[in-house]
Amino acid sequence: MVEPKPLWFGGDYNPEQWPPQVWAEDVELMRRAGVNLVTVGVFSWSSLEPEPGRYEFGWLDQVLDLLHSNGIRVTLATPTASPPPWFSLAHPDALPVTADGVRLLHGSRDTYCVCAPAYREAAARIARVLGERYGDHPAVEMWHVHNEYGTTCYCDHVAESFRRWLRGRYGDLAALNDAWTTAFWSQGYSAWEQVFPPRRTQYLANPTQVLDFRRFYSDELLAAYREQKAVLGTRVPITTNFVFGSWVPVDHWRWADDVDVVAIDHYPDGPGIEAEQQTAFGADLARAWAGGGSWLLMEQAAGSINDRGRMHAKEPGRMALNSLSHLARGSRGALFFQWRASRGGSERYHTAMVPHAGPDSRMFREITELGELLPRLAEADAGVVEAEVAILWDAESWWALQGPGLPSPTIDYLESVRAAHRQFWSLGIGVDFARPTDDLSRYRVVVVPSLYLLTDEAAAALSAYEGQLLVTPLSGIADEAARIRLGGYPGALRDVLGVRVEEFHPIDGEVELSTGARGHGWTELMTVTDAEVLATYENGDPAITRRANAWYISTWLDDPSYEALVRQVLQAAAIDPPNYPRGVEVITRRTGRTRWRYLLNHTGQPAEIATDAENLITGEETAGSLVLAPGSFAVLREQA
Amino acid sequence: MVEPKPLWFGGDYNPEQWPPQVWAEDVELMRRAGVNLVTVGVFSWSSLEPEPGRYEFGWLDQVLDLLHSNGIRVTLATPTASPPPWFSLAHPDALPVTADGVRLLHGSRDTYCVCAPAYREAAARIARVLGERYGDHPAVEMWHVHNEYGTTCYCDHVAESFRRWLRGRYGDLAALNDAWTTAFWSQGYSAWEQVFPPRRTQYLANPTQVLDFRRFYSDELLAAYREQKAVLGTRVPITTNFVFGSWVPVDHWRWADDVDVVAIDHYPDGPGIEAEQQTAFGADLARAWAGGGSWLLMEQAAGSINDRGRMHAKEPGRMALNSLSHLARGSRGALFFQWRASRGGSERYHTAMVPHAGPDSRMFREITELGELLPRLAEADAGVVEAEVAILWDAESWWALQGPGLPSPTIDYLESVRAAHRQFWSLGIGVDFARPTDDLSRYRVVVVPSLYLLTDEAAAALSAYEGQLLVTPLSGIADEAARIRLGGYPGALRDVLGVRVEEFHPIDGEVELSTGARGHGWTELMTVTDAEVLATYENGDPAITRRANAWYISTWLDDPSYEALVRQVLQAAAIDPPNYPRGVEVITRRTGRTRWRYLLNHTGQPAEIATDAENLITGEETAGSLVLAPGSFAVLREQA
Amino acid sequence: MVEPKPLWFGGDYNPEQWPPQVWAEDVELMRRAGVNLVTVGVFSWSSLEPEPGRYEFGWLDQVLDLLHSNGIRVTLATPTASPPPWFSLAHPDALPVTADGVRLLHGSRDTYCVCAPAYREAAARIARVLGERYGDHPAVEMWHVHNEYGTTCYCDHVAESFRRWLRGRYGDLAALNDAWTTAFWSQGYSAWEQVFPPRRTQYLANPTQVLDFRRFYSDELLAAYREQKAVLGTRVPITTNFVFGSWVPVDHWRWADDVDVVAIDHYPDGPGIEAEQQTAFGADLARAWAGGGSWLLMEQAAGSINDRGRMHAKEPGRMALNSLSHLARGSRGALFFQWRASRGGSERYHTAMVPHAGPDSRMFREITELGELLPRLAEADAGVVEAEVAILWDAESWWALQGPGLPSPTIDYLESVRAAHRQFWSLGIGVDFARPTDDLSRYRVVVVPSLYLLTDEAAAALSAYEGQLLVTPLSGIADEAARIRLGGYPGALRDVLGVRVEEFHPIDGEVELSTGARGHGWTELMTVTDAEVLATYENGDPAITRRANAWYISTWLDDPSYEALVRQVLQAAAIDPPNYPRGVEVITRRTGRTRWRYLLNHTGQPAEIATDAENLITGEETAGSLVLAPGSFAVLREQA
Repeated sequence: MVEPKPLWFGGDYNPEQWPPQVWAEDVELMRRAGVNLVTVGVFSWSSLEPEPGRYEFGWLDQVLDLLHSNGIRVTLATPTASPPPWFSLAHPDALPVTADGVRLLHGSRDTYCVCAPAYREAAARIARVLGERYGDHPAVEMWHVHNEYGTTCYCDHVAESFRRWLRGRYGDLAALNDAWTTAFWSQGYSAWEQVFPPRRTQYLANPTQVLDFRRFYSDELLAAYREQKAVLGTRVPITTNFVFGSWVPVDHWRWADDVDVVAIDHYPDGPGIEAEQQTAFGADLARAWAGGGSWLLMEQAAGSINDRGRMHAKEPGRMALNSLSHLARGSRGALFFQWRASRGGSERYHTAMVPHAGPDSRMFREITELGELLPRLAEADAGVVEAEVAILWDAESWWALQGPGLPSPTIDYLESVRAAHRQFWSLGIGVDFARPTDDLSRYRVVVVPSLYLLTDEAAAALSAYEGQLLVTPLSGIADEAARIRLGGYPGALRDVLGVRVEEFHPIDGEVELSTGARGHGWTELMTVTDAEVLATYENGDPAITRRANAWYISTWLDDPSYEALVRQVLQAAAIDPPNYPRGVEVITRRTGRTRWRYLLNHTGQPAEIATDAENLITGEETAGSLVLAPGSFAVLREQA
Repeated sequence: MVEPKPLWFGGDYNPEQWPPQVWAEDVELMRRAGVNLVTVGVFSWSSLEPEPGRYEFGWLDQVLDLLHSNGIRVTLATPTASPPPWFSLAHPDALPVTADGVRLLHGSRDTYCVCAPAYREAAARIARVLGERYGDHPAVEMWHVHNEYGTTCYCDHVAESFRRWLRGRYGDLAALNDAWTTAFWSQGYSAWEQVFPPRRTQYLANPTQVLDFRRFYSDELLAAYREQKAVLGTRVPITTNFVFGSWVPVDHWRWADDVDVVAIDHYPDGPGIEAEQQTAFGADLARAWAGGGSWLLMEQAAGSINDRGRMHAKEPGRMALNSLSHLARGSRGALFFQWRASRGGSERYHTAMVPHAGPDSRMFREITELGELLPRLAEADAGVVEAEVAILWDAESWWALQGPGLPSPTIDYLESVRAAHRQFWSLGIGVDFARPTDDLSRYRVVVVPSLYLLTDEAAAALSAYEGQLLVTPLSGIADEAARIRLGGYPGALRDVLGVRVEEFHPIDGEVELSTGARGHGWTELMTVTDAEVLATYENGDPAITRRANAWYISTWLDDPSYEALVRQVLQAAAIDPPNYPRGVEVITRRTGRTRWRYLLNHTGQPAEIATDAENLITGEETAGSLVLAPGSFAVLREQA
Repeated sequence: MVEPKPLWFGGDYNPEQWPPQVWAEDVELMRRAGVNLVTVGVFSWSSLEPEPGRYEFGWLDQVLDLLHSNGIRVTLATPTASPPPWFSLAHPDALPVTADGVRLLHGSRDTYCVCAPAYREAAARIARVLGERYGDHPAVEMWHVHNEYGTTCYCDHVAESFRRWLRGRYGDLAALNDAWTTAFWSQGYSAWEQVFPPRRTQYLANPTQVLDFRRFYSDELLAAYREQKAVLGTRVPITTNFVFGSWVPVDHWRWADDVDVVAIDHYPDGPGIEAEQQTAFGADLARAWAGGGSWLLMEQAAGSINDRGRMHAKEPGRMALNSLSHLARGSRGALFFQWRASRGGSERYHTAMVPHAGPDSRMFREITELGELLPRLAEADAGVVEAEVAILWDAESWWALQGPGLPSPTIDYLESVRAAHRQFWSLGIGVDFARPTDDLSRYRVVVVPSLYLLTDEAAAALSAYEGQLLVTPLSGIADEAARIRLGGYPGALRDVLGVRVEEFHPIDGEVELSTGARGHGWTELMTVTDAEVLATYENGDPAITRRANAWYISTWLDDPSYEALVRQVLQAAAIDPPNYPRGVEVITRRTGRTRWRYLLNHTGQPAEIATDAENLITGEETAGSLVLAPGSFAVLREQA
């Protein structure tokens, strides 16, 4: 067996927040904890260039040398996510403006407009300067451009860039007027300069304008990333850390080709088991963006989950469980924000690898234990994550379903996809995310949750799919311009599903179907043109249907009902769900005749798993079975 | 019997949203559905004048000819509710500004300031051009100016107009200072240019300034309407569609003389039986604005009720029930927004006569059924709606009770009036809306719900009224400048009611009276000067009183208690509530010896009604009684 | 016995709102009610100077003479809290600007920026003019500068003043960068003009910037006050009325030396017993600001408690109870806002001594009864309020705990202090408020609730304290720059408490401790270094600890549990809680051998109190015991 490459362990390291005497302790503690990679410089612009054109590299030279001489590799960041205060004064036009017209000021982070020429020039300049100085510094393992691209602005610079992008997309105004249906409410444009970002307007905005603005923003941010990448002038791999959130105008899938490593930050937004499901979801999505290959968890929080400003502490052992969940799904490491908790600043209560209490702490002890563990897991990285099921994911459909004028304010694309993912997660079935135009023939089941926008090409691909196709409400409704496909919902999928929906009937509360299944929030008035009715509403109308391999659910099922239906679909696909104890998460990776199983026991009970294998965590051989203590985990190497 | 004029059936028709090949299908379907009137051009400005001064009338010529040749009449609109984007660029000062100073941008509708000279000129110009071209076009049955007047702005143009209006109202600043009580908080004005719209200020605004601003806005919008009416230069009847809502600064009653037909849009904002009650309420109000005569339901939604962005589907048959409720109360037709559901734009999910699913749909079938029905009901339009009860309505009191610094944030004028109306609706008693200075002697009961502002003249009129007078909290409290009438509430009605209220005591939750009646949200500390106490609070203080014909309730009664009290008042008025099954709505119209009764069964049970009559719906004679199926309706012609 | 000085009774009197004929009635009613002090002119700027430089003093001359000739003393106000509309037009740059950049307009009150030179000049000018005219007018007992200082602005004038203040505090930018931890998120300042008020920014603001802005604002408002005080040129005592609220950027304690009398406005914000507790809290705080001596209740509402726009009526007798609560704690009077309820304006529903109903009212009768009573209580003013317990109060810690990025959005400094105060209030134990650097040796118990910011000096003082020290969560966490003290929480108090907290664990809902005590909202991961564990969490970790005289609670206890713990602490302090019936509030004052006890019965039951004393309220001698009727009160003079 070839010695596998080590997994990365570490996090954001911000030495500029501390006096140099702390740096020595930092490195000593990093070594104790097994840290082998730190991200430096993410928010260091004002430390590196305290005044326009005056650079202070001494501290960074020193830090890189110190790390290098201690064998700790560095991901070096360009600091462009937070321009210094002097930049605001020099270029007030580069400060971001809200849809309401409020020009924001520095005093936090991300106070720039990505479309402002002054910002773009300044960002490219600092990137070039850093690239020239540190491009191939021996400490540098990777370059990290910017941080969490995702900030939006509505200023005049943005308006100009938006127009340029729209010209590229539509060619002429007639095409734009058609795509945006501007004949509605007298919005017809007769000159490009009449087109603006969706600034605050009197009443409901134009939904396609809003959608195109997010598409544009994704492309514009990508262009800004590419500019920095181009000027860095290094042969070292370059990436940026993807951030996930309902406000983020980035289609990460379209960015994936431009990063040498797909890197994500992952912060669940709810406590309890939901956080585990979100972790699995985020990691599966990252792997999809990485084309199924390995990727990197660039940030997670060591000790807590932040739910709208409310910190939920992670229980003992949970940080390791979360890290394993990422590693199992293809992450080449477990990194954290940040190494040492800040004394001041806005995120002083963001938990860290070294907490305010210092290294004599539960937190640092758990970090050290995790650091010890990682080398034993490196071999499993050779295995490919197993998945016979694909769930379709489409950032643009998400955006379209956040737009104005939808039939119900409770429509929630993300929850629709999460709910689909959750059922397979609960059943221990590995899942990939995919796009409709990907090669789906490798999957036995494809789930299409709320894929609102569907091009003709994508619809054709789904119609040709021969495995089990499970479709949920609001899929196939609109074309790429978010215009409704007429003749009955779900327009593009009507034929393959053999149904025709006349009306959406959102509801408050729940509804019980003829099978006892329970739906909530949504029903539809549907007729069956060529399908079997699997469940009906109280009035006898169809609720769940099946046409050969194509299944349609016209309500939001609750979890038990959804899982029961998924079991039926799996049966039709001849997939037999494994028989793990409920609450034990299992991820399988395989290469050749070797199989690695990651087992994460999220329950409060011991769980027994049948296996003859070596447990990489303990180094012990199991003899027929393994008992996982509550909250613990194992990684089993098994031979076929 | 003279052949009655046909009732109107149809809706907003926006052919500019569709390619011409759809128009032919439209007209064919309209004929199939019995459509005889469509509203064209409401939001067509950018289609009619795509660039300043360049007009495109070809499509409209074609559409009018097509409709005309198919016998479908047209309500032709001026498109001034949504200026095109080019207008914003030419006149940025004509974009509306919020109280916060945010200048709104086009991208929705209604993005204009009605006080901006450029807007007024542009609106008059497009109206004139349309009038010249289509003024007496043979297809045109009616002109429809603008759409749903009600948009507010706080810009400097508005400030100037507001000052002009205030000069007209008050003459000099001393009178304004007095009316506004500017001595409070040092707000005394010493020059007109110091007076502004109620823009965002530090703390509570001046309530009379806020009230006068709404009064001014109603008059200013009316002036804009009159300008268009004047330039249209047509002999065809002219109207505009009234919209109802808490944000609307329009006193429709004061507009009624300026429209040739009172036309309303009606959209209930809650599901279930509440929507039926709101429909009856809106229709009774429209009839009042029309001086008791006929009026026109210009817009309703075919298939759903929108409750803050949440669509509630109308059950099968409900659209017809709602339409009958309007027709019964004097509407000369049933029109919808809109004919064909849009593919795109903000209101693509607004239901329509032809839904996304197309004509092969429940929706279009119900539309067709309703279209078939209407001709049979035309004769009843000759009958006058019967009402022996009047409820007073006053837009200005509504506005005053939305102002700053009231004793409780749950004060709700609209609910106070609705609650009064609801009791009579439930009892099957016809109701008119009236103003205090109307001739009230024709009514046996007059209800005065929360008539906060009362002029001396109005107070005198109410005091002189000899029927049963039922007054609820917050009536008669203030003069027309919203200044409290001193000496004890309800100042202007103290003598007629024989009570004196020292203090308002809003409460959380409920209170039980000595009679078992239940109140909520509000109580008062009242002494009786010359009245009988009908019910007391727990501490023995008076809660409900009666002085001869004048009744006073000092709390918000729940529906059963309110209804019980109304029954007492009706008994005193010698009105005997009819004995219909509960949940069956009945509206009676009469002329000479003919009586038409509209019966709407809102229950889930069959309902039996005693009658010897012809049911215009079925054409059948009833023999002593009629059984109404659940959710169905009848219109009975009965002879005395 | 020397005749004591009379207690003040009266309120804000705004004759400019009424025609002169009302003034005569006013004075007659004042005399009837026993009013001896009224505040005149608070919002009279536009009446005194209706146009720039044109003064109208006639009415004020007349009013002062009228009051003087009737023996009613006057507190004369400078009217600078509400500049007239003409001022806005002359100086638009002096209108306040929100953090969002919205420039507010006149139309309410407080529409000025205290940092605008034009405002400061105008304020000083009107103060000087008034001082020259009325400085030593025989009617004037006191001068009242401005009203409720507390308005904030974010404009460029403010930015300049803020920078000046920061230069004074920090000397150079390096010190500011260090204090603000600007190395976090690249906020390093390299020139003073880069520093701004915390205007709206992209994401979380810098917490120390936010804190310093409030500190600055307190100082800046104080400077404005001092300017007026200086120009008044009078020998009459000068004060301003302190207002209390979460939005107020004033550290009243630091102002106390500049006022000749500490004066407060007190408006509880919740109904029921909570209002009584708040009243006691506010009065104890005022006495602390006054250095333990007497102070003055300048405003309270006669008839209602305003809870976010919702008026809760005060029950009969409650106004007197509230007034007694203030008097007992050192107020030299009971004043109200306002004398006569306004007819119009924003606060027309603010209750008053003479309500809308006029003098023939419960309200005025209760006012008159209270006025009769006060002279009998004047003698007790000689007594010192007894307190053996001190609670620490720190406005800056409040502000810091309102800042961005804290571990939980439910952190509530005010509630933390109120909860501590409430326990002693319930037990009938007198409490002082104090600062950590005050002489604490006179107290047997010192409570430290959430004293987040702690200087080294203050921490040393607390560590040296020898009485019982009771500390609650979030105390001693940060230094004066709000930077976390490292090594484990609560940094500055770790040694004295003998505990080390590694992590904060905010929770939803409740937790039960080993002792049966119940906590909520907050727990901590704590180890004991040198303390006894008094209670543990479910997992056995310490929850409540004691190290000799130092007690620590790591959760928010509910009231019964908190009171039980307080009883333990009192026992350790050898303080025996008096045995009053629960719900009877008792305040004790003493001088020499005379003791006055104020007894307020907040219960619905009669309460028996053992005493041999004279009841000043009734003039009767008690014989061994006194029975207090429900809702009534007594003031007992007892001799040792």
